[in-house]
Amino acid sequence: MPRFAFRIEYDGAPFRGWQLQEGQPSVQGTFEAALARLDPAAPRVHGAGRTDTGVHATGQVAHADLSRDWAPERLLMALNHHLRPHPVAVNACALVDEGFHARFSAIERRYCYRMVSRRAPWVHARGQIWQLRHALDADAMREGARALIGRHDFTTFRASLCQAPSPVKTLDALEIETLPVEGGGTELRFNLRARSFLHNQVRSIVGTLERVGAGALEPARVGHALAARERTACGPVAPPQGLFLTGVGYTDDPFAG
Amino acid sequence: MPRFAFRIEYDGAPFRGWQLQEGQPSVQGTFEAALARLDPAAPRVHGAGRTDTGVHATGQVAHADLSRDWAPERLLMALNHHLRPHPVAVNACALVDEGFHARFSAIERRYCYRMVSRRAPWVHARGQIWQLRHALDADAMREGARALIGRHDFTTFRASLCQAPSPVKTLDALEIETLPVEGGGTELRFNLRARSFLHNQVRSIVGTLERVGAGALEPARVGHALAARERTACGPVAPPQGLFLTGVGYTDDPFAG
Repeated sequence: MPRFAFRIEYDGAPFRGWQLQEGQPSVQGTFEAALARLDPAAPRVHGAGRTDTGVHATGQVAHADLSRDWAPERLLMALNHHLRPHPVAVNACALVDEGFHARFSAIERRYCYRMVSRRAPWVHARGQIWQLRHALDADAMREGARALIGRHDFTTFRASLCQAPSPVKTLDALEIETLPVEGGGTELRFNLRARSFLHNQVRSIVGTLERVGAGALEPARVGHALAARERTACGPVAPPQGLFLTGVGYTDDPFAG
Repeated sequence: MPRFAFRIEYDGAPFRGWQLQEGQPSVQGTFEAALARLDPAAPRVHGAGRTDTGVHATGQVAHADLSRDWAPERLLMALNHHLRPHPVAVNACALVDEGFHARFSAIERRYCYRMVSRRAPWVHARGQIWQLRHALDADAMREGARALIGRHDFTTFRASLCQAPSPVKTLDALEIETLPVEGGGTELRFNLRARSFLHNQVRSIVGTLERVGAGALEPARVGHALAARERTACGPVAPPQGLFLTGVGYTDDPFAG
């Protein structure tokens, strides 16, 4: 049973998240259905990250054990054929050894959150951004964000439903890029990197930083909220359509070369 | 009757082009309907460029004479409210003097064509690119494109239905940018600039250059095709969904400052 790894991109809008759910559209279910068209054993697919309803990906990683060998290039083309017309595509495919597990071998997850400050709706980025009409102070947000870097108890920025055994995580990076938008306005891209994240952690952090950028919270309040270690200290949770799982890191990148 | 200028962005997919057509969805018709919600005189809207079915814009310009005065900022917000849920938005609005005409005062049109070379479908740019699976040689395309710069008879690159009085136009710029695509592949952006264009000129040029990039035509064939001055010398016309009207130039930019 050769094992294959897949790098997958998707638009999260039509799905109730990555994970298979009875009677609900999911990315995993859509991917497994496409794989079943190629392999009579209908292999199970294991993803690295369980993205929520409406959250997108450009670099989700998953693996599956197939009944027979494939040239990775042919497998990629055949899967993309059967994934149509769903907004899901395999952008890389590789044969991996049986020790590789998309979720358990992962040593890093990368997310990007796209926030836009603009008066007019941004027609060409519909469903891919969180748009706000007020100005946002990126420097204040960067100042607030500094308190979150490193190893902390992230209880404040964790969904009440989160099932992780511990709220202690190490946030390796949180960088905020600003880019001009064609036709006016400014985009802020929040790039976050950690070994793993708690449920809703990115959206909770971004929602709190938005309040700082809007001037409703002082930057120092972010560190105080973290130290409070309680959910009520968190700002509003940012909406899902601005969030992208952009990559998953492994000791040996299965898609390199 | 104060005259207002609007800079308009739209997704061309649901429309039969900019121009009003009886019984067909058009951007102009959609815009006029939104304006009629604000002004009982139901003003006529005059656009700078008649984009075709499926062609997008980030910087179309139009003007209209309204029955009363408006603060441009309020007019922009009110129009965007009434344009929902259509993928059309006003990204700038200004009071102009009565000598301004969106079409006849224009001294420049700018277009961008987005072409992508990638094996996997690019989920997040759906409907906004022309995707090809083969490699494209950008340098060969740039070499071929050089023959088109300047004042020429562009009969070869003109739709048979084109109603322009003369096929002679001056192409001021044709630049090809290359950008990496997240998840693999390369995007080529063709940026074209001229006082005005013939019907289908940009898509005819881009479609011919694609054949050069794919290696099916030698770069020198572009100049020969131009010199032939006949439609049959043109390559295939590139599809509409990769084309964006990105801007219209005026001696005095109505949206400056």
